[in-house]
Amino acid sequence: MDPLSALDFAKGDGLVTAIAQDHATGEILMVAHVNEQSMRETLARGEVVYWSRRRGLWHKGEQSGNVQKVKSIHVDCDGDAVLFRVEQIGRAACHTGKRHCFFRRWDGAAWVDEGEQVFDPKEVYGS
Amino acid sequence: MDPLSALDFAKGDGLVTAIAQDHATGEILMVAHVNEQSMRETLARGEVVYWSRRRGLWHKGEQSGNVQKVKSIHVDCDGDAVLFRVEQIGRAACHTGKRHCFFRRWDGAAWVDEGEQVFDPKEVYGS
Repeated sequence: MDPLSALDFAKGDGLVTAIAQDHATGEILMVAHVNEQSMRETLARGEVVYWSRRRGLWHKGEQSGNVQKVKSIHVDCDGDAVLFRVEQIGRAACHTGKRHCFFRRWDGAAWVDEGEQVFDPKEVYGS
Repeated sequence: MDPLSALDFAKGDGLVTAIAQDHATGEILMVAHVNEQSMRETLARGEVVYWSRRRGLWHKGEQSGNVQKVKSIHVDCDGDAVLFRVEQIGRAACHTGKRHCFFRRWDGAAWVDEGEQVFDPKEVYGS
């Protein structure tokens, strides 16, 4: 069976929503997209490769070293979203150096920044 | 502060990706979208209201009773995805009667259906 048979790329103009979740803690690390090519790359490498409208094929962590090792792959009922349960190398998924991208929480009056700062993005990505 | 100030609706033609996660178990229940109107409804009701291109304003669980009570709201680094941590009433989020929508897992050769069947959709939605 072709694993891509369960994914509906037509609906989102070639893209499917992709979520990375820490396989151990259940934390949602980030949300992006995959297209057919990046999905095949992900399956071949065992590390998540997204598709970005800006970057194109995006092997997450290639520069920072913070790759996402795929532990399991799940698809939703209508095939327009895929869930990667991953081991996050380097403990940080977000380009801001935060543990995950959802580091702002609405407290009823303001967005509160409460994420853990794992690395300094200036040191990792340079200036 | 307007909570919608952190959300970038322009990028996705008025839509932002919305993820519902069980606040107690960390399970990802479903992925859909919100627009400005549905986000304001969600904040006002304390229950998730999505925006569906097909249905329009979509108060999740209105028919089945399986509403999603909002425990916390989080926004990602670039504001194009929102995470609702919720209490899932009725224990099932998916219209198939499954606990969550990501009930298919790729086992290396096929998509394996492993989700828990909580209700019979024929009984809940009728024919």
